[in-house]
Amino acid sequence: MTDQVSEQTTNRLSLYLRFLNELEANGVRTVSSKVLAAEFDLNAALIRKDLSHFGDLGVRGVGYVVADLRLRLRQILGLDRRLNVAIIGAGNLGFALADYPGFRQDGFRVVALFDSLPDKVGTRSRGGILIHDIRDLKRVAKREGITIAVVAVPSGSAQIVVNTVVDAGIKALLNFSPGSLRVPRDVKLKSVDVTVSLESLSFFLAKG
Amino acid sequence: MTDQVSEQTTNRLSLYLRFLNELEANGVRTVSSKVLAAEFDLNAALIRKDLSHFGDLGVRGVGYVVADLRLRLRQILGLDRRLNVAIIGAGNLGFALADYPGFRQDGFRVVALFDSLPDKVGTRSRGGILIHDIRDLKRVAKREGITIAVVAVPSGSAQIVVNTVVDAGIKALLNFSPGSLRVPRDVKLKSVDVTVSLESLSFFLAKG
Repeated sequence: MTDQVSEQTTNRLSLYLRFLNELEANGVRTVSSKVLAAEFDLNAALIRKDLSHFGDLGVRGVGYVVADLRLRLRQILGLDRRLNVAIIGAGNLGFALADYPGFRQDGFRVVALFDSLPDKVGTRSRGGILIHDIRDLKRVAKREGITIAVVAVPSGSAQIVVNTVVDAGIKALLNFSPGSLRVPRDVKLKSVDVTVSLESLSFFLAKG
Repeated sequence: MTDQVSEQTTNRLSLYLRFLNELEANGVRTVSSKVLAAEFDLNAALIRKDLSHFGDLGVRGVGYVVADLRLRLRQILGLDRRLNVAIIGAGNLGFALADYPGFRQDGFRVVALFDSLPDKVGTRSRGGILIHDIRDLKRVAKREGITIAVVAVPSGSAQIVVNTVVDAGIKALLNFSPGSLRVPRDVKLKSVDVTVSLESLSFFLAKG
């Protein structure tokens, strides 16, 4: 049933979940696809289609019950269990991500950093995350139950690092370096592109 | 004409632009709203609506001419001129962003870092960006023509820093700290939420 759910739909589910968290915190009990559509400037039909992938979540005449839909989205997104994350690259970005407080709120836990520099291996981030030798990735990943790797290395070495991560049996990767990277079909690679957000600001400044 | 263009539409314009860059690099000359719709798992009507905000960009029976639409989107997004960016917070994240190679590709230039720690002020990032005293923000922003500030400080001090940035006359802010922040109506604040990307990976792992 979830086979045909696209990347874009998944991203939208995350955004819906954020909004539902807000609604619940504000004591709102139900929400219509129309309200969701207005919030995200999408059309209501698309939102109903996104949610219908996962069964009949709406209630006729009511829309969606906020608490139920929120719980269901958390299940769908796999957020009802803790996920252990490794960060590859103990540079500025790696350290920033290792100690990023947003992860923990959402059920993600950074359990290890990896680097290849002997000076760094064996030391810890400010938040106390141990830096392992990248050569131990496979062993540590298995021991610590790591299922997601965040790649925070310079573009020049990103593909080599991605290959190492894939060889270690990790199937989900989040990449921060610009440029395209190759992974096998059964591995999921997401890239964070900060320039999309900057472009939105640029648009705001251009029209002002 | 651009008054009614929402945040979500602007984000989509950035994604369309990325895809058009790819198409052009691959020698593709024209693209239909249907192909764009399939790429982004949206419906073609929504894409035509997004683009119709900016005049009649399509050609009947052809769709969009890739080179023309790309150029027009770059103009709409204000990417046809260079934008000077300041980064507030010379910590791990601030340094990582200061030297991030993706910015320059897209017409953004980081011209200054700011911090309040006397030890840091006057030193430089690895890429050579000078760290100024946050108290000099207004003066430096004016001198350097800074129009975008990236806030890379811990959540606890984020609102104070945002207030300082707003007082300095900067109207566009990109925030990396979790939690909500207040800005005046004439100021645009975007927040980067890395957990949205992690949730997409979580979904992939949950259904596998």
